[in-house]
Amino acid sequence: MSEGWDHAGRLGRAQAGLRDRGADGLVIGLGADLRYLTGHRAPALERLTALVLPARGAATLLAPRLEAMAAAGCPAARDGVLEVVAWDETDDPYRLVAHRLAASLGGSAPWLLVNADLPARHLLELQRALPVASFALGDEVLGELRVVKEPAEVERLRRAAAAADRTIASIAAGRLVGRTEADVSHEVRERLVAEGHDEASFAIVGSGPNSASPHHEPGDRVIGPGEPVVLDIGGTLDGYGSDITRTFWVTGPDGSIGPDPQFVELFELVRRAQAAATAAVRPGITCEALDAVARRVIGEAGRADEFLHRLGHGIGLEAHEAPYLVAGNDTPLRPGMAFRIEPGIYVAGRWGARIEDIVVCGEDGPIVLNEAGRDLYVVPG
Amino acid sequence: MSEGWDHAGRLGRAQAGLRDRGADGLVIGLGADLRYLTGHRAPALERLTALVLPARGAATLLAPRLEAMAAAGCPAARDGVLEVVAWDETDDPYRLVAHRLAASLGGSAPWLLVNADLPARHLLELQRALPVASFALGDEVLGELRVVKEPAEVERLRRAAAAADRTIASIAAGRLVGRTEADVSHEVRERLVAEGHDEASFAIVGSGPNSASPHHEPGDRVIGPGEPVVLDIGGTLDGYGSDITRTFWVTGPDGSIGPDPQFVELFELVRRAQAAATAAVRPGITCEALDAVARRVIGEAGRADEFLHRLGHGIGLEAHEAPYLVAGNDTPLRPGMAFRIEPGIYVAGRWGARIEDIVVCGEDGPIVLNEAGRDLYVVPG
Repeated sequence: MSEGWDHAGRLGRAQAGLRDRGADGLVIGLGADLRYLTGHRAPALERLTALVLPARGAATLLAPRLEAMAAAGCPAARDGVLEVVAWDETDDPYRLVAHRLAASLGGSAPWLLVNADLPARHLLELQRALPVASFALGDEVLGELRVVKEPAEVERLRRAAAAADRTIASIAAGRLVGRTEADVSHEVRERLVAEGHDEASFAIVGSGPNSASPHHEPGDRVIGPGEPVVLDIGGTLDGYGSDITRTFWVTGPDGSIGPDPQFVELFELVRRAQAAATAAVRPGITCEALDAVARRVIGEAGRADEFLHRLGHGIGLEAHEAPYLVAGNDTPLRPGMAFRIEPGIYVAGRWGARIEDIVVCGEDGPIVLNEAGRDLYVVPG
Repeated sequence: MSEGWDHAGRLGRAQAGLRDRGADGLVIGLGADLRYLTGHRAPALERLTALVLPARGAATLLAPRLEAMAAAGCPAARDGVLEVVAWDETDDPYRLVAHRLAASLGGSAPWLLVNADLPARHLLELQRALPVASFALGDEVLGELRVVKEPAEVERLRRAAAAADRTIASIAAGRLVGRTEADVSHEVRERLVAEGHDEASFAIVGSGPNSASPHHEPGDRVIGPGEPVVLDIGGTLDGYGSDITRTFWVTGPDGSIGPDPQFVELFELVRRAQAAATAAVRPGITCEALDAVARRVIGEAGRADEFLHRLGHGIGLEAHEAPYLVAGNDTPLRPGMAFRIEPGIYVAGRWGARIEDIVVCGEDGPIVLNEAGRDLYVVPG
């Protein structure tokens, strides 16, 4: 099992998922689903690289001749759990896909699943090469697998969370006043990488009224004394995501202009909502019920309208993945699901606060991966 | 015309292209095509943001409610050349696309084009919402527009090329011996950004036998005295790509172990092939004929088999775009086309050399954007 991942097991579970749903096969282009199933990483070129997985039988990794050597070096290929087939300039790779699936396509109206990110350039050609097949997204099969993290995946998420925690601590120990948001954001990105991230994907720094904008783009605004700053930062470490939000208050000189009582009230409400939702994590609670726990705390203070977004969503190989903690999603949590819990309160034009942790659903309750303190960070100005 | 781009003109030319081909409309998701037509940049979220362009009539930019403000701020929206429509959680955005196209879909079998990168999650839903429509790639229409660069685009490419040139000069002025490829690659990336790039996309450093691998991944190999190093580096600056390759020879102390005569012979052949292909650039010559010019020079020396790849491909808003300079492509060059000319010779296990410039087809001949010297760079060890 290269790199500690059981690709044979994952491929087998994907095939079982196909059979459970009556699907005949799965075609997966480059991206997180391919990494999950095979460990293969490759730049997104225009020529088809794809895993072809019939509901029964052997898996194939198809790659253009020039990329075939890299494909043959991927963990699943090295473990011998799939066959790598190179296609040449004179081949029609989509016919090769059809050929590899042929044995599995017994019925008159085969049903094939593809990954949600598969580009139109490939999907339209697959539809041409397999004109009688119906195509649908493989999310249900793949999401079902990927949504429950294996212990080694939780360990990766924990390491990413720890690196993000250290970044928050280091920013909190420095100075913020007099600097632009963009400058602090740049430091965050550098720190995330210095702490071991492959990539710093985002570093939101929203100061003063900008703290009221959940997806604020850090800009030229200079952070002043006596105002809040929301930091929402993350990236990937060994392929797995981090994401943490903490709220700061920047004082004036010698600790003057401390936290405004109205802001503290708002912040404490966020903290209570975040703590209540976290404590409610357990197998069986639905995604929407978890969202409702936080919303109830904020709603009881009459501020439901200021909690603008869903409670959170999943994290793993991708920044956006299931489960989505939102009204209308009655999926029950299962042990191993990993997600953000990130309630916030936003007063447009004035200020806002948010607290966010990565939490895994354990057998008996929450496993909180971030360990950075959740108090309001008061930074001397 | 925000940021100097004439989005109204581009949208009008796209509509003319649709009508010329008998297509009824175009649906463009996030990516380079959308940036080209509207100036809109947005992170690739799973919810549909799309330009909906009927063959006749008004253009619409559809965006989820939370992203609509950013969409309304894009250059084409600010110039009033399209209407921004926000969709809510309770809307079916694909039905909104169908609705926006309805007036244009007179026929019984409408034909719609989509961008090649449109993810399956959107294409399958569009096919569901427009069951009688046929879908095809919009490459022909969009490629036709994008392949010929406007003067302001050539200016962007020139600025990106100049920044890449300065990076090459700075690496050539430093030391290489005793450093790992990965270390030099890291310095290249930092320099590219310091010279103004938005992003350093790649920094190939292939030393010794690794110079024989065109897509070598820089690693722990330590650069030694008396061996070649191929640097192939680039990124984007103001959205437009750079890409340059130069070949180095690292000597021993006090200039000992100078360039091996056999390597110099190989290098000079690459240089002649690159110069000949560049000189042959003019309106009307086909892509395959240009490739053949370089291949003939190398072939006449009996080394055709060691020139492993095509002569080059286009550059602009994307790293991979038309025109593709390769056997079998009989597209004639037109003024304003921009592409790499990058022949190489590779002796597996021993060494290799490549020279690459960005060249624009001018009215009377080549316009070479890179100005870094094309001699073998001899760097003291």
